[in-house]
Amino acid sequence: MTPEEFRRAGHQLIDWVADYRARIAALPVAPSTQPGEIRRQLPADPPDAPESFDAIFRDLDSIVMPGLLHWQHPSFFGFFPANAALSSVLGDFLSTGLGVIGISWQSSPALTELEEVTTDWVRRMVGLSGAWSGVIQDTASTATLVALISARERVTNYGLAAGGMQSAPQRLTVYVSAHSHSSVEKAALLAGFGRNNLRVVPHDADYAMRPNALDETIARDVAAGFLPCAVVATTGTTATTAFDPIDAIAEIAQRRGGLWLHVDAAMAGAAMILPEYRALWQGIEQADSLVINAHKWLGAPSDCSLYYVRDTQHLIRVFSTNPSYLQSAADAQVKNYRDWGIPLGRRFRALKLWCLIREQGVRGLQARLRRDLANARWLAEEIAAAPAWRVLAPVRLQTLCIRHEPAGLAGEHLDRHTLDWVERVNRSGRAYLTPAKLDGCWMVRVSIGAEMTELEDVRALWTLMRGEAER
Amino acid sequence: MTPEEFRRAGHQLIDWVADYRARIAALPVAPSTQPGEIRRQLPADPPDAPESFDAIFRDLDSIVMPGLLHWQHPSFFGFFPANAALSSVLGDFLSTGLGVIGISWQSSPALTELEEVTTDWVRRMVGLSGAWSGVIQDTASTATLVALISARERVTNYGLAAGGMQSAPQRLTVYVSAHSHSSVEKAALLAGFGRNNLRVVPHDADYAMRPNALDETIARDVAAGFLPCAVVATTGTTATTAFDPIDAIAEIAQRRGGLWLHVDAAMAGAAMILPEYRALWQGIEQADSLVINAHKWLGAPSDCSLYYVRDTQHLIRVFSTNPSYLQSAADAQVKNYRDWGIPLGRRFRALKLWCLIREQGVRGLQARLRRDLANARWLAEEIAAAPAWRVLAPVRLQTLCIRHEPAGLAGEHLDRHTLDWVERVNRSGRAYLTPAKLDGCWMVRVSIGAEMTELEDVRALWTLMRGEAER
Repeated sequence: MTPEEFRRAGHQLIDWVADYRARIAALPVAPSTQPGEIRRQLPADPPDAPESFDAIFRDLDSIVMPGLLHWQHPSFFGFFPANAALSSVLGDFLSTGLGVIGISWQSSPALTELEEVTTDWVRRMVGLSGAWSGVIQDTASTATLVALISARERVTNYGLAAGGMQSAPQRLTVYVSAHSHSSVEKAALLAGFGRNNLRVVPHDADYAMRPNALDETIARDVAAGFLPCAVVATTGTTATTAFDPIDAIAEIAQRRGGLWLHVDAAMAGAAMILPEYRALWQGIEQADSLVINAHKWLGAPSDCSLYYVRDTQHLIRVFSTNPSYLQSAADAQVKNYRDWGIPLGRRFRALKLWCLIREQGVRGLQARLRRDLANARWLAEEIAAAPAWRVLAPVRLQTLCIRHEPAGLAGEHLDRHTLDWVERVNRSGRAYLTPAKLDGCWMVRVSIGAEMTELEDVRALWTLMRGEAER
Repeated sequence: MTPEEFRRAGHQLIDWVADYRARIAALPVAPSTQPGEIRRQLPADPPDAPESFDAIFRDLDSIVMPGLLHWQHPSFFGFFPANAALSSVLGDFLSTGLGVIGISWQSSPALTELEEVTTDWVRRMVGLSGAWSGVIQDTASTATLVALISARERVTNYGLAAGGMQSAPQRLTVYVSAHSHSSVEKAALLAGFGRNNLRVVPHDADYAMRPNALDETIARDVAAGFLPCAVVATTGTTATTAFDPIDAIAEIAQRRGGLWLHVDAAMAGAAMILPEYRALWQGIEQADSLVINAHKWLGAPSDCSLYYVRDTQHLIRVFSTNPSYLQSAADAQVKNYRDWGIPLGRRFRALKLWCLIREQGVRGLQARLRRDLANARWLAEEIAAAPAWRVLAPVRLQTLCIRHEPAGLAGEHLDRHTLDWVERVNRSGRAYLTPAKLDGCWMVRVSIGAEMTELEDVRALWTLMRGEAER
């Protein structure tokens, strides 16, 4: 494709995306696709001869579009807000259009330095001190894996340079909560700790990790000859947006011999751009690492996970590689972000953060988040006041955990009722919700915060939910 | 940013990218940026109030552009071809514009099924049997880490579900070559094997792993009580594009108790779309996993690393997570790619592969690669025939390892000469080359294969190199 052909198809694409975003509210939020339905419509063999972009656009409309869940829809209340704000979309377009690669500072200096600047902007926006340095990873799953490998290497004094995890002198343990994200357990297993050395610390009635229980669990492990290595605390858990008490956990981690404290603020970290919410992660300065997904509520399109550490020298010592073809005279004076994580080659991801923050301004981002928080409070009050409806966990931010509990319904019958009405809501195409289990029973998560979601959309959701649950 | 504002700025962006690609040959390939130069031009604090997109475009031109190495330039001969073909760029734009996320099949069925179809297209294009299934990872670094963790878990019978790597019954060993990519060593260390358990197998005069040496090394380890776990063979090494003999290595891996065989075909895997080159990875069907970067020579913009495995059930058992909020009724009948790698959330990466293959057709892609191979042969012949110039390794594909060796110059003096003339070439802005060490001495890699590179660009490079080296 020549630049002139790109220009023609590109303008068509811009209109296509603009039209999509403009008409998205009129689309059913969720598809009714059956397994294999998309695949069956596509040829099993790649085309031998070139096809026109017009043909691709046609298949996009007729085959791909009916198979999408529309995460940018104003009535998307599922999973988490994965906003792809249009200014940030343009930043990502620039990255792809430029087609430059970061494998060292030298391989595109602006790619590295804009990443330094924009991750530092977000650091300031969430109120972290200058002791922290940031890097863009793909997802929080990866960032947490990086954190746990870093923890493993600190406690083994860089065992990777010798006998590795398989020569750990004592069994290393990791501490999480039952409400930690699934990626935390996964990271611990991938990093080689083993499920037997993963401790699930009890939580309190609000689903936050109990510091006393953490302290006792660590003490028991020490007595039994284990070497406590890392604790992962969550700032805004997935199911209920609970906040583990960072300050108390940090104090214990420190007192118990300096466990690595990683804070998973993947979703709720965005709220820290609002000074009035920062008490929720009090003690954060005592953590060793933390992750905030700019590609969730904040508005950058995936993937753009911000990983912050205090000890950059340690991170680099664990993750560095330095073959001759990557060395340059500038190495002593610059950051080589390949040494800050797993991948060598890196996209110019900072552009989407740069465009987002500049086009919105910090005030614009704050205003949108405050709108969502007000909408969540409004819905929480409505639900709490409605007969047979319950809000099951404190509404700390923009996610509600709710259930419709008709008199006389319990156990499996209540579960069936819950899953049934959510399925009716989702099948209606007029909203999308994610059910999840809480204390062993199904409930419904209402995650408010899609960029286009206004109070009227939340009102419409409430009407729809009542209609489907109470019918 | 509203859809209408996006439309306006988006059209401007398309023209900007089209103009960039159209005029790129006139730009200096490499920047002359000093460390910190970009950062110093940007405000340390994020803007409080919104800014216009026009202001962003202005800074893009005046601050960012002068700090880029232009990987899409026709005179880019550095590192490896990282083509961002414009049809594929549009596919990536669609992904970002749609803003949908893959965390399960249900979270956007088309995202998963198009990934199944397009990875299967590439499988057919490179001549792999139907025994292989593909998934898109970000980079080969990550894919190799996934492979080595998979190897670890197979030999320990899923130790991650019990005591983990730290309870491995015997010391597990991994076999690589000194010419394996730096990410292979890194993956082994991150996976917990430890440097002491990483064996560097000797290579032959053509820089390919010596099967006999591999066999002997394994035998020695077995005798010493180690448990050989995995071997990583390379189809096209980074420095010299050497091809480890897959068939012989596979036979040894099998005979020695079933070591995991991972094949790193990150760069050269693209060449396997040419049937006449497939003898170079003969035996590939006996491997357990392999990686091909579609984001290199093939033309998809980064990141788009294709990871193929034969035993998908094993992969899923190692990498799966299944919290309640990700479960759906469709799970038994679909692929959930979150269980095929590290990240949970995934971009709609298949779109860029789909657009690339359709717009180019297999024939179009083949023709471009054959052009590059012919250009490399032309240059190799020129250099071999020129006095004082040497081609240092067999030119298997599109990368040449060369040196200008004036009479009487050796050792450090020759190294200095080599680094000096390459620096003069790079500083001229008229081409970009990567020096690297081979057998302890600096040489120059000429990697031919940027999408816009024609024979006349290679001719110009040869004239430039002679001018700078021989002056």
